[in-house]
Parts: sequence; structure tokens; C-alpha cells
Amino acid sequence: MFNAEFVSGMALLGAGIAMIAGLGPGIGQGIAASKGAEAVGRNPEAAGKIRSIMVLGIALAETTGIYSLIIALILIFLKA
Amino acid sequence: MFNAEFVSGMALLGAGIAMIAGLGPGIGQGIAASKGAEAVGRNPEAAGKIRSIMVLGIALAETTGIYSLIIALILIFLKA
Amino acid sequence: MFNAEFVSGMALLGAGIAMIAGLGPGIGQGIAASKGAEAVGRNPEAAGKIRSIMVLGIALAETTGIYSLIIALILIFLKA
Amino acid sequence: MFNAEFVSGMALLGAGIAMIAGLGPGIGQGIAASKGAEAVGRNPEAAGKIRSIMVLGIALAETTGIYSLIIALILIFLKA
Amino acid sequence: MFNAEFVSGMALLGAGIAMIAGLGPGIGQGIAASKGAEAVGRNPEAAGKIRSIMVLGIALAETTGIYSLIIALILIFLKA
Amino acid sequence: MFNAEFVSGMALLGAGIAMIAGLGPGIGQGIAASKGAEAVGRNPEAAGKIRSIMVLGIALAETTGIYSLIIALILIFLKA
Amino acid sequence: MFNAEFVSGMALLGAGIAMIAGLGPGIGQGIAASKGAEAVGRNPEAAGKIRSIMVLGIALAETTGIYSLIIALILIFLKA
Amino acid sequence: MFNAEFVSGMALLGAGIAMIAGLGPGIGQGIAASKGAEAVGRNPEAAGKIRSIMVLGIALAETTGIYSLIIALILIFLKA
Amino acid sequence: MFNAEFVSGMALLGAGIAMIAGLGPGIGQGIAASKGAEAVGRNPEAAGKIRSIMVLGIALAETTGIYSLIIALILIFLKA
Amino acid sequence: MFNAEFVSGMALLGAGIAMIAGLGPGIGQGIAASKGAEAVGRNPEAAGKIRSIMVLGIALAETTGIYSLIIALILIFLKA
Amino acid sequence: MFNAEFVSGMALLGAGIAMIAGLGPGIGQGIAASKGAEAVGRNPEAAGKIRSIMVLGIALAETTGIYSLIIALILIFLKA
Amino acid sequence: MFNAEFVSGMALLGAGIAMIAGLGPGIGQGIAASKGAEAVGRNPEAAGKIRSIMVLGIALAETTGIYSLIIALILIFLKA
Amino acid sequence: MFNAEFVSGMALLGAGIAMIAGLGPGIGQGIAASKGAEAVGRNPEAAGKIRSIMVLGIALAETTGIYSLIIALILIFLKA
Amino acid sequence: MFNAEFVSGMALLGAGIAMIAGLGPGIGQGIAASKGAEAVGRNPEAAGKIRSIMVLGIALAETTGIYSLIIALILIFLKA
Repeated sequence: MFNAEFVSGMALLGAGIAMIAGLGPGIGQGIAASKGAEAVGRNPEAAGKIRSIMVLGIALAETTGIYSLIIALILIFLKA
Repeated sequence: MFNAEFVSGMALLGAGIAMIAGLGPGIGQGIAASKGAEAVGRNPEAAGKIRSIMVLGIALAETTGIYSLIIALILIFLKA
Repeated sequence: MFNAEFVSGMALLGAGIAMIAGLGPGIGQGIAASKGAEAVGRNPEAAGKIRSIMVLGIALAETTGIYSLIIALILIFLKA
Repeated sequence: MFNAEFVSGMALLGAGIAMIAGLGPGIGQGIAASKGAEAVGRNPEAAGKIRSIMVLGIALAETTGIYSLIIALILIFLKA
Repeated sequence: MFNAEFVSGMALLGAGIAMIAGLGPGIGQGIAASKGAEAVGRNPEAAGKIRSIMVLGIALAETTGIYSLIIALILIFLKA
Repeated sequence: MFNAEFVSGMALLGAGIAMIAGLGPGIGQGIAASKGAEAVGRNPEAAGKIRSIMVLGIALAETTGIYSLIIALILIFLKA
Repeated sequence: MFNAEFVSGMALLGAGIAMIAGLGPGIGQGIAASKGAEAVGRNPEAAGKIRSIMVLGIALAETTGIYSLIIALILIFLKA
Repeated sequence: MFNAEFVSGMALLGAGIAMIAGLGPGIGQGIAASKGAEAVGRNPEAAGKIRSIMVLGIALAETTGIYSLIIALILIFLKA
Repeated sequence: MFNAEFVSGMALLGAGIAMIAGLGPGIGQGIAASKGAEAVGRNPEAAGKIRSIMVLGIALAETTGIYSLIIALILIFLKA
Repeated sequence: MFNAEFVSGMALLGAGIAMIAGLGPGIGQGIAASKGAEAVGRNPEAAGKIRSIMVLGIALAETTGIYSLIIALILIFLKA
Repeated sequence: MFNAEFVSGMALLGAGIAMIAGLGPGIGQGIAASKGAEAVGRNPEAAGKIRSIMVLGIALAETTGIYSLIIALILIFLKA
Repeated sequence: MFNAEFVSGMALLGAGIAMIAGLGPGIGQGIAASKGAEAVGRNPEAAGKIRSIMVLGIALAETTGIYSLIIALILIFLKA
Repeated sequence: MFNAEFVSGMALLGAGIAMIAGLGPGIGQGIAASKGAEAVGRNPEAAGKIRSIMVLGIALAETTGIYSLIIALILIFLKA
Repeated sequence: MFNAEFVSGMALLGAGIAMIAGLGPGIGQGIAASKGAEAVGRNPEAAGKIRSIMVLGIALAETTGIYSLIIALILIFLKA
């Protein structure tokens, strides 16, 4: 019989699977950081502007990682 | 027997799987941020225009991540 | 015995799997945004035209993500 | 025993799996959009011609995504 | 016991799996569209010739996607 | 017990799996089309020769997709 | 109990799996066709020689796809 | 019967799966470090600025790895 | 109970799996053909020498595909 | 019945899965080391500064590998 | 009960899996052949030396494919 | 029933899975070695400095491989 | 019940899985051979030195393939 | 019931899985050998120094392959 414990188990397993998405922002943000460092190395005077746009882009790329975090927390604390 | 708990379990597992899509926007947006930083480094005068188009592109790329979030929330709160 | 709950469970699991497609547009649109930012950085005067074609392309690339969203919603609300 | 519900369940699961194909056009169309933006940035005078061929190519690339949508709809509404 | 419903279920699942092939033409045709846009941007005078060969190539690349569609339709309507 | 229905089911599932091969020609032919468009853009005078060799290459690349189609049809109509 | 039908089923499933190899030649031959078109575009006078070596290479690359076809046919007609 | 031990087991398995996301930041941050070293090698005078933006980018890319760590710790200590 | 039919089934399934290796030579030989066509396009006078080394390389790359064919044939005719 | 041994088994299996994340930092840090060596080869005078930023970046990229180690140790010693 | 037939079945399945390794040499040797053709096209006078080193390298790359063949033959004839 | 032998079995299986992480450092360190050789070839006078930074980077990249080794040894000797 | 035949079966299956590692050296050595041919084509006078270092590198890259061969042989002859 | 034979079987299966890591060093060392050959071709006078750093790097990259070998041997001889 499938029972409440099965539901809880699936919720916790699903929380773990949801976090896998975090490897996407990790790779993408690292690439952004790499180009940021390269750009500063070429044009140190523009370091302020480069940092500002890089941080903005990375912050926006962070969102899907946060979505996964939210879903995982909901799965763990509300459904398991 | 498959029962209501089985349905709930599948809904929660499906929510976790749906979030995997978030790695796509994460990678793509990071690439966008990297090119944004590079472009600002090359042409700091155009920083405003570059930021505006970069944010526009990233915002549009965010959509499929949000779709996954919506589906996951529906699966969790309406079906499990 | 396979019963109505099995059907519902498969529908909800299928909805989660369908959303995985969203990582494709996410990556592709991010690449489009990256080239848009690069192009504006090289030729700021053409920013309007670049934005217009970039948004057009991204909007068309969005379609398969929307198809997945539609199928997932149908699976969840009509079949589960 | 495999019964009608098993058939319905497989149809709905199959619909979800079929939608995965949507990540292909998503990536491909995004690449097309990226090159469109780049080309307009280099040669803004040709923006009209570039947009026309880009949209044509993207529309043709959309087809396999639509095939998946059709098959998924058939699976859901005629077979489940 | 494996019965007629098992056969139908496998046919519908197989139809879904067959559609995955659609991601190949999707990516390939998108790449073709991207190069078409790039080529028109470089040489707008040749737009007609470029469009003609691009559409020809994309149409031929479409074939395997159509094969999958045909097989999926046969699986769904003749075997399930 | 494994019976005739099991055989039919495996044949139909196998037909679906066989079609996955279609993503290979799809990607490859798209790449060929992309280079064809690029080559015509660079040298429009040679458009006839380029088209002729491109179509020849794409036609030969089509073969493995056709093999899969043949095997799938045999599996469906002769064995299921 | 494993019986003759199990053997037939595995043979048909194996035939489907064997066809997956066809995506390799499909990608490879497409790349060959792309370079053939590019080479003709650069040096139209050598179109005959280019076509001859390209077709030779593609024909040799076809072999593993044919091996899979042969094995699949043997599995289907002699063993299932 | 699914019982409390099943829930605990799924929580611990999910914790392990969640940590897989850590390979994303690992790759991305390594790429960032590689470009940082390259940039310093080209422009040693800007080493301070390059280091500062590189560390900023890497720190932001670290976040999804930390999210996974948090979820894994919660799964282990609160749910298993 | 595992019996002779199980052995035969595994042999036939194994034959199908073994053929997957054929995608390797398919991709590799296609790349070789692509470079052969490119080389002839650049230096048509050396077409004979290029063809001779290309065919030699492709023939050697064929070997692992033939090994798989041999093993599949042995599995099918001697063990199933 | 799922019992304490099942929990222990899942914890140990999860510990093994968690360690897979270690391939990410391994690849990334190797890339960083490769660029470090290249940069020193181009500009040996800056070897000190290059080493310092490379080690800093690699140390930060190490973190997600350490998170996995910590989770694995917790899973093994506290939960199994 | 696991019996001698189970051992034979696993041996034959293992033989099929072992052959998958053959795709590695297939890809690698094809790349070697591609560079061999390119090198001859650039420097036809050195064709003899290029062929000799290319064949040497391909022969050494063949070894792991042969190891797999040997293991598969041992599995089939000594253990199944 | 899950018993102590199940725990031991999972520990040993987990040890094997944990070692997969070793392919990451293997690829990364090889890339580092390739760039080290290239750098020495370009600037033999700096061979000492290049070797010193290359070995430092490779040693740091080794760490996640060692973590996996440690976890595998713990799993084998303390838990199985 | 798990018995001695189960152990033998797992040993033989494990031997097949271990051989998959052989695709790594196959790809890597092929890349080495490709660069060897290219280098000889550019600098035929150094053919002896190039061959000597290429063979040395390929021989060292062979080792992990040999490790897999050894483990597979041990699994087959000592444990099955 | 899980018994000692289950433990042995898992140990042997785990040994096979652990060896998969060997494809990492195989690819990486091959890349190192390719760059070594290229570097010698460009600068034959530095062949000694290039060989010395290449072998050093390859030897360090070998380590994770050896770790896997050690773990596999331990799993086979101490635990199975």
C-alpha cells in the first residue's frame, strides 16, 4: 500500500533531485566571472562598470537556483 | 493498489524533476552575463545600452525557469 | 491492478518530465542574449535594431517551452 | 493484469517524454537568434533581409517541436 | 499476464520515445538558420540564393523528424 | 509467462527506440545546410555546384535515418 | 519462466537498440557534407575531385550503419 | 509497507543526490580561476583589480553549491 | 528459474548493445571525410595522396566497428 | 519492511553518490592549472602574481568538493 | 534461484557492454585520419612520414578496442 | 528483510560509485599537462617556473580524487 | 537467495562494465595521433623526435586501459 | 535474505564500476601527448624539456586511475 510515508519519501527524494539544477547557474556564473576577470585585465579603468554589469548578470542567473532551493524547502517542510 | 498517496508521491517527485530545467537558464544567463562584462570592458561608453539589452535578454530567458517553478508549485499545492 | 490513481500518477510524473524541455530554450535564449550584448557593445548605434531582432528570435525560441507548459497544464488539470 | 488504465497511464507518460524533444528547437532557435543579432550589429542596413531569413529558418526549425506537441495532444486526448 | 493492453501501452510509450529524435533536426536546423542570417548579413545581395539553399537543406534535414512523426502516428492509431 | 503479446510489446517499444537514431542525421544535415548557406553567401556564383554537392552529401547522410525507419516499420507490421 | 517468447522479445528489443548506432554516421556524414559544400564554395574548379573524395569517405563511414542494419534484420527475421 | 525508515532512507539518498550539483560550481569556478591567471599574466599591474572581481564572481557562483549543502544538511539532520 | 531461454535472450540483447559502438567510427570517419574534402579543395593536385591516406585511416578506424559486428554475430549464432 | 539497515544502506549509497560531485572541481582546477602554466610561459616575470591568483581561485573552487566530503562523512559516521 | 544459466546470461550481456568501449577508438582514430589527410594536403612531400606516424598512432589507439574484443571473446567462449 | 549484509553491500557499491569522480581530475590534470608541455615548447627558458606552477595546480586538482579515495576506503574498511 | 552463481554473474557483468573505460584512452590516443601527424606535416625533419614523444605519451595513456583489462581478467578468472 | 554472497556480488560489481574512472586519465593524458607532439614539432631543440614536463604531468594525472585500481583490487580480494 502507498501511504503517507511513501508521500514523504517521494517529497524528500524530489527535493534532492530538484537541487541538481544548481549545477547550471554554477557553470554559467563561473563563465561570467571568468569573462569579468578577463575584461578587467584588458581594461582596468572600466573595472567599476564591468563589476556592476557582471554582478547584475550573475544575480539574475542565480534565480533558477533559488527557485530550486524554494521548491526543495517546500517539499521538505510542507510535504514530508 | 495505486491510491491517492501514490498520486501525491508522483506529484512531488514530478515537481522535483521539473526543476531540473532550471539548469538551462542558469547556463544561458551566465553566458549572457559573461558577454555583457566583455562588451562593457571593450566599450565602457555603451555600458548603459549593453546593460539594458542584456537584462532584457536574460529576463526573457528566465521564462522557462519560471514555467518550471509554476508547474512545480501547482504539482505540490494542488495535486499532492 | 492499474486504476485511475495510476493514470493520475503517470499524468503528474509526465508533467514533470515534460518541463525538462525548458532547459533548451533557456540555454538558447541565453546565447542569444549574449550575442545581443556583444553586438550592442560593438555597434551601439544599432542598439534599437539589434534589440528588435533579438527579442523576435527569443520570442520564437520560447515557443517549445510554452508547448511544454501547455502539455504539463493539460496533464495536471485534465488528466490527473 | 494490464488494463485500460495501464494504457492511459503509458499514453500520458509518453506525452511527457515526447515533449523533451522541445529542447532541440529551443537551443537551435536561440543560436539562430544570436547570429541574427550579431549580423544586424555588423550590418544594420540589411536588418530587414536578415530578419526575414532568420524568421524563415526559425519557423522551419519549429516544426519538430510542433510534431511533438501534436503527438502529445493525440496521446492525451485520444488515447488516455 | 501480458495482454492486448500491454501491447497498446508499449505502443504509446514507444510513440513518445520516438519523438525524442525531433531534438536533432531542431538543433541542426537552428544552426542552419543561424548561418543563413550571418551569410545574409555579410552579403545581402545574395539573399535570394542563400535563402533558397538554406530552405533546401533545412527541408532535407526535416525528413528524420517526419519519419518519427509517421512512426508515432502508426504506433498510436494502428497498434494502440 | 512471456507470451505473444510480450513479443508484440517489445517490437513496438523497439520501434520507438530505433527512431532515436534520427537525431543524428538531423543534426548532421543541419550542419551541412549551415555550411551550404555560408558558402553560397561567400561565393554566390558557385551556388549551383554548392547545392549539388550539399544535396548529395545530405542524401547520403539520410541513409541511416531510413534504415531506422525500415527497421521500425518491419518491427511494427511484421512482428507486432 | 523464461520461454521462447522472451527470446523473441529480447531479439526485437535488441534490434531497436542496435539501430541507435545510426546517429553516429548521421552526424559524421553531415559534417563531411558541410565541409564538402564549404570546399566547393572556396574552390569551385575542384568540385569534381572534392565530390569524389567526399562520397568515398561518406560511403566508408556508412559501413557501421549498415552493420547495425544487418544485425537488426538478423535479430528480427532469424531470431524472433 | 512504507514506514518511517523508508522516509529516512529517501532523505539520506536525496542528500547524496543533491550534492551532485556541486560539480557545476566546481567547473565554473575553475574556469574563472583559469581566466584570472591568464589576465594577471597579461597585465600584472591590474592584479589587484582582477583578483577582486574574480573572487567576487567565484563567491557568487558558490551560492548554488551552498544551497545544496544546506538542503543536504536539512535532509540529514531534520528528516532522517 | 533462469534457463536456456534466459541465456539466449541475454545474448540477443547483448548483440544489440554491442552494435551501439558503431556510432564511434561513424562520427570519426565522417570527420575524416570532412577534412579529406577540405584538403582536396585546398590542394587539388594532392588529391591522390590525400585520398590514399584518408582511406587508410578510415579503414583502420573501421576495425572497432567490425569487432562489434563479429561479437554480435557470435552472440546471435553461437549463443542464442 | 524498511528497517534501520535500509536507512544505513541508503546513507552509504548516498555517500558514494555525493562524491561524484568531485569530478567538477577536478576538471575546473585542471583547467585553471593549464592556464596558469600557459600564463607563466608567456610572462615568467609575473610568476609570483599568477601563482597567487591561481591558487586563490583553485582554493575557492575546492569548496564544493569539500562540501561533498563533509556530507559523505556525516552520512557514513552519523547515519549509517 | 541464481543458477549456471544466470551466470551465462550475465557473461553474454557483459560481452555486449564491453564492446561499447569500441566507440572511443572509433572517434579517436577518425580524428587522427582527418588530421592525416589535412597534413598531406598541406605538405604532400611528407606524405610518407605522415602516413607512418599516423598509422603508428592509430595502431596504438587500437589497443583498448582489442582489449574489449578479447574480454568479450573470453566472456562468450569460456564463461557462457 | 534488510540486514547487515545489505548495509555492507551498499557500502561496497557506494565505494565503487565514489571512485567515478576520479575521471574529473584525470581529464583536468591532463589538460594542465598539455598546456605545460606547450608552454615549455614556446619558452624553454621558463621551464622551471612553468613546471613549478603546473605541479602546484595539478596537486591541488588532485584533492577531490583523494577525497573519493578516502571515502571509498572508509566505506570498505569501516562499514562493510 | 543470493548464491555463488550470483557472485559469478556479478563478476562477469562487472568485467564488462570495467572495459567501458577503454573508450577514454581510445579517444585520447587518437587525438595524440592526430596532432602527431599534423606536427610531422609541418616539420618533417623532426619526425623522429615527434614520434618518440608521441609514442611515449600514448604508452602512458594506455595504462588505465590496461588496468581495466587486468581487473576484468581477475574478475573473470579468479572470481567467476 | 541478503547474505554474504550478496556482499561479494556488490563488491565485484563495484569494482567494475570503479574502473570507469579510468576513461578520465585516458582522455586527459592523450590530450597531453597531443600537445607534447605539437610542441616538439614546433621547437625540436626543446624536446628534452618538453618530454620531461609532459611525463611529469601525465604521471600526476595517472594517480586517480591508480586509486581506482587500488579500490577495485581491495574490493575483489578483501571483500569478495
